[in-house]
Amino acid sequence: MKDRFDLFILIGIGVSLLSFVFALWLNHWVKSRPSSNERIAQIGKLIRNGANTFIRKEYIVLARFAGVVALLILLFVPQPIWKGDYLRNIIMAVSYIGGTVFSAVAGVIGIRVATIANMKTAEAAQTGIRPSFLTGFRGGSVMGMAVVGSTLLGVSLVMLITNDTTALLGFSFGASSLALFAKAGGGIFTKTADVSADLVGKVELGIPEDDPRNPAVIADNVGDNVGDVAGMGADLFDSNVASITAALVIAAALDSSAGGLAHASMVLCYAAAGLLASIIGVGLARMGKRSGPTGALNLSTYITTAIFGVLTAAATWAFDFEWRIWGASAVGLLVGVVIGLASDYFTNDLRKPVRNVAKASGSGPAFTILSGVSYGFLSTLPAMAGIAVSALAAYKLCAPLGDGYAMFGISMAAVGMLSIVGMIISNDAYGPIVDNARGLVEMGGLGEEALEISDSLDSAGNTVKAITKGFAIGAAGLTVIALLGAFISEVNTHAAKLGVEGITGFDIMNPVVFFGMLVGAAVPAVFSALLILGVDRNAQRMVAEIHRQFREIIGLREGKEGVVPEYDRCIEIATHGALRELIPAGLIAIGATLAVGFIGGVQAIGGFLCGNIISGLLLALFMSNAGGLWDNAKKYVEAGNLGGKGSQAHKSAVVGDTVGDPFKDTAGPSINTQITVVSLVSSLAAALFLAYSLF
Amino acid sequence: MKDRFDLFILIGIGVSLLSFVFALWLNHWVKSRPSSNERIAQIGKLIRNGANTFIRKEYIVLARFAGVVALLILLFVPQPIWKGDYLRNIIMAVSYIGGTVFSAVAGVIGIRVATIANMKTAEAAQTGIRPSFLTGFRGGSVMGMAVVGSTLLGVSLVMLITNDTTALLGFSFGASSLALFAKAGGGIFTKTADVSADLVGKVELGIPEDDPRNPAVIADNVGDNVGDVAGMGADLFDSNVASITAALVIAAALDSSAGGLAHASMVLCYAAAGLLASIIGVGLARMGKRSGPTGALNLSTYITTAIFGVLTAAATWAFDFEWRIWGASAVGLLVGVVIGLASDYFTNDLRKPVRNVAKASGSGPAFTILSGVSYGFLSTLPAMAGIAVSALAAYKLCAPLGDGYAMFGISMAAVGMLSIVGMIISNDAYGPIVDNARGLVEMGGLGEEALEISDSLDSAGNTVKAITKGFAIGAAGLTVIALLGAFISEVNTHAAKLGVEGITGFDIMNPVVFFGMLVGAAVPAVFSALLILGVDRNAQRMVAEIHRQFREIIGLREGKEGVVPEYDRCIEIATHGALRELIPAGLIAIGATLAVGFIGGVQAIGGFLCGNIISGLLLALFMSNAGGLWDNAKKYVEAGNLGGKGSQAHKSAVVGDTVGDPFKDTAGPSINTQITVVSLVSSLAAALFLAYSLF
Repeated sequence: MKDRFDLFILIGIGVSLLSFVFALWLNHWVKSRPSSNERIAQIGKLIRNGANTFIRKEYIVLARFAGVVALLILLFVPQPIWKGDYLRNIIMAVSYIGGTVFSAVAGVIGIRVATIANMKTAEAAQTGIRPSFLTGFRGGSVMGMAVVGSTLLGVSLVMLITNDTTALLGFSFGASSLALFAKAGGGIFTKTADVSADLVGKVELGIPEDDPRNPAVIADNVGDNVGDVAGMGADLFDSNVASITAALVIAAALDSSAGGLAHASMVLCYAAAGLLASIIGVGLARMGKRSGPTGALNLSTYITTAIFGVLTAAATWAFDFEWRIWGASAVGLLVGVVIGLASDYFTNDLRKPVRNVAKASGSGPAFTILSGVSYGFLSTLPAMAGIAVSALAAYKLCAPLGDGYAMFGISMAAVGMLSIVGMIISNDAYGPIVDNARGLVEMGGLGEEALEISDSLDSAGNTVKAITKGFAIGAAGLTVIALLGAFISEVNTHAAKLGVEGITGFDIMNPVVFFGMLVGAAVPAVFSALLILGVDRNAQRMVAEIHRQFREIIGLREGKEGVVPEYDRCIEIATHGALRELIPAGLIAIGATLAVGFIGGVQAIGGFLCGNIISGLLLALFMSNAGGLWDNAKKYVEAGNLGGKGSQAHKSAVVGDTVGDPFKDTAGPSINTQITVVSLVSSLAAALFLAYSLF
Repeated sequence: MKDRFDLFILIGIGVSLLSFVFALWLNHWVKSRPSSNERIAQIGKLIRNGANTFIRKEYIVLARFAGVVALLILLFVPQPIWKGDYLRNIIMAVSYIGGTVFSAVAGVIGIRVATIANMKTAEAAQTGIRPSFLTGFRGGSVMGMAVVGSTLLGVSLVMLITNDTTALLGFSFGASSLALFAKAGGGIFTKTADVSADLVGKVELGIPEDDPRNPAVIADNVGDNVGDVAGMGADLFDSNVASITAALVIAAALDSSAGGLAHASMVLCYAAAGLLASIIGVGLARMGKRSGPTGALNLSTYITTAIFGVLTAAATWAFDFEWRIWGASAVGLLVGVVIGLASDYFTNDLRKPVRNVAKASGSGPAFTILSGVSYGFLSTLPAMAGIAVSALAAYKLCAPLGDGYAMFGISMAAVGMLSIVGMIISNDAYGPIVDNARGLVEMGGLGEEALEISDSLDSAGNTVKAITKGFAIGAAGLTVIALLGAFISEVNTHAAKLGVEGITGFDIMNPVVFFGMLVGAAVPAVFSALLILGVDRNAQRMVAEIHRQFREIIGLREGKEGVVPEYDRCIEIATHGALRELIPAGLIAIGATLAVGFIGGVQAIGGFLCGNIISGLLLALFMSNAGGLWDNAKKYVEAGNLGGKGSQAHKSAVVGDTVGDPFKDTAGPSINTQITVVSLVSSLAAALFLAYSLF
């Protein structure tokens, strides 16, 4: 049995190397697309340099942060180092650093190719919609392949070297602490730039959206890349690693009681199958002669889903895995699709919610907000119920297999839901690429036809984004439920070593659990509030800088030939501010976890995680969907409905969109990461909570 | 021991009768205040008639609803009637009707005196601030005494007649189903009228706020009474009954194992002490020569708190109750005060949050919303942590007494927090009375000095409201935790009868529990969304009616002598619409409970209630505090800060206030009631869920 696990580790490494080779080929393909327009090259270079500036700054801060955390891990995790067994502490610290490095590398790759693919996609629009679509999609796919390849490679290597699932938790924590920076920091960055550029440019000076005189305009375009490409990639890398980690931790507990490593093998096998399915799906994806770009994106998702189902069924048959667990992972995948479709309903401008909000906007901005908040609240039900049902179905399917299988089934449902994440990221990264490309087509003056093509590609990106976002939140929900199971496994492992009693669960009626639950539920709200207030404060700083440039740089306002604003200053402010504003939010989340753990012990932490998951999912779904809805309501009005641009409905819809921006691009998606970080901190500090707690 | 319980029932009945006598005296005192101004009498009569119209219509719908529910209870609760023991079903149905009737009577009394006290308070303002304050406060106190007297009388009578805590659950369900109508229905009513009157009057026609030509203006004033007086009273009646019920159910379980009725006696004794303390506190309340009205209101609250502490300590000493449980109820009361102060911090215009939101408003309405949402989110932490800490402290104090005492301690903390509810309601009902009085002073032309006096009384009402609202939500939080304990007791009672295994708790790691938790967490969001959308739709209907009147009633727009609008039509629309829009929200909450119970059984219901409590508290705190904050930010700007009326900051702040109105007066406070209703439905249907569930 042990041999077979090694076999699956080798398969995992093999498939991940295959995905890197494929990513290299895609990268080469994108780079070899023709380019000739000088204006596009010039603006594209500004965006590229800006993104690099951000990445450099971010990684300096990150390196310091990761250094401090690694030191703390070295000293205290899994146990204070002076209690002996210092080798385990070293392994944990190194695994942690490994997680941050793998995530960072995947992010850099994604940004690099995205800031080339945007130009190539823009120029390809001159030759037709199909080549332009393919360029954008393959640009995004490089990120998809790199992220999922890194996940599988990293997890396989940690298991190969340490054969210790606790070390894997360290690796996962590295991934999620980087994701916290990348997603929340990127989110603050992009919305700071977006809001400031609009406030001074459009509102105060009345210059167009992408006017190069505006010092914040490049920061705004950079923001799309660092928020949506790098941030989203880090977020899904984090979720993906966490889901596999949780499944492996639970599998280890099952395997240790059953002997052998059959369940751990199954996890790696399914993860490899998911990556393989994504590689095939991405390879096959192209726009048919009759289908639109939305259809093409969705079709490739469905194809990938089907391939995953077939591959895992074949593997289950060939390696004699339990069919019931296959069923759980299939249920997870299906429910993921359903949740995505529900998100789509609430944010699609062909449906009632967006239209009603647009209509309500005619009575003033208060009604835009009230109706948008209402639909945002409503949108939480199908997703919450979907996660609930998939957890229940996985349980029902797997509980008959024996003790502990129910939770393993849930963790495999999460793995199933995240199996096609390579495809999801490709679709998601396609969005900012074609968004950037649309701007470049306009600024480069490529003509009306190219503009129409890139418009239609861009709009497909927005539609698909809603589906993938719902998918990501759903997957995070299942993953953190599984992480709760992993937490119990960790606690029991340490309890056995310390010679104290282990735990089997957390009773709601235990007031210590309830205490943790109430505090845990408040954390995502506080976390979101700090991020939104951070965008607010940071935008004020950037607005001051834009005013200064217009005042001090002679000829800028008039658009004198050769006078350019200091784009880099704005990028620096956005970067610095983003990283500065992020820190209190991150510290509150981690600090609350440690406080609850040291006060109430592991029982309080169980409640804390549960409360955190529930309110986190609720708020994440609410903010993401309400934000997407307001964005599309504004676009719907701008398309000429209800009076079009300049009408009362439009003014109100713009207010809704501005409120929705930090909801959907800063706070909402960062909550995912916050939940994962808190779950992993709990697992890592489990031994400490067991040994040193007040209650 | 049994005799002693009878003694406490008699004490309960005695103290409640005392409070009714006191209420009659207060009512007589208020009515005997001098009045002479004809214009005030005329407008006051319109408001009074409008409130009566609403009450009449509401009670017709209510009677039908209660009839259907009573029939269902008769047929199915606690068990299908054809399973024998039909006497118990009859007792349940009668208790249920009793709960609705007691609550309704208290509401009618409150409305009647409030719509007289407003006129008397207005006229008293001519003679000075102290008599005017006393008139307003004593008007509100009639409601306070009536509500708490009804609570104690009702509970005592049910126990005297049936000696069955399950019947008490039926009584409590009657109270909370009426509260659902009164609070959510009243909330939709008042905001429909408010929003419509402003939209047509202020925005479209540019006439002043309280202009009698506006057909919706009386509906608006009626709304203050039906929403804030009757609705709030029903809400606190509901919480108060529920907290005593939960404590008695848990006490019954303790007593049945220990023999005797010592714990049940203690609950009744503490409830009676709370009412007595409120009677004394209300009796002593007056404005000192140097203190302002806010100080006077807060001082009487503190005095009542102290009297309660002394009375219960004396009773604990005299009757030999456990001191640890006295400690739990004292902790509950103290934490209630702390939560109130935290709410005050976030909504007081002397503090940072309100000022920052007002400042952000200078950049546009989107920033008003974003900063208000952020502070609203932040405001949830102290209250959630406060409830968590009080539950934990009650547990720590009482757990050493033995099995089951921890939950009894928590229920007594809730009783403690709600002990001074007579005072709280008096303070709260004071608000709309002086608010109405201020309008009457202005419309009656009582002069500048009287206006200043009533302004200062009104502003004290707003400040105190924030504190009492925080108090009410905190108390609801503890009460529903105790109701969860009551649910377990119910399940076990029925399980013993059915010969199946009972339960001791709900394990988070049980996927059935988690399933319930996720669905339960989504319910308050959906419930709020439906209420807010209801206000939206209803306001559209009323706006159409106002347009019709201005079009068809000749001379109305010009203000021709003797031409009056059809005020009653607007009141009817608000009433009808409110009751119609409320129904889907109520059905969703009850329907989801039944669905989860019949799918997942009692374990799923445990999770459902827990998820419901957590997300309900979170959203209620968020919406109440954000709404209060926006209201005060607008007032702060209107007081001449940041450019004052007409500035950008003012326009934005008005948008914030409009969004906040249904947040704080419709959805936020109704969530309390929703949680209680769902908890009670669960307890009542416990036997059904035990017998007929899918899992």
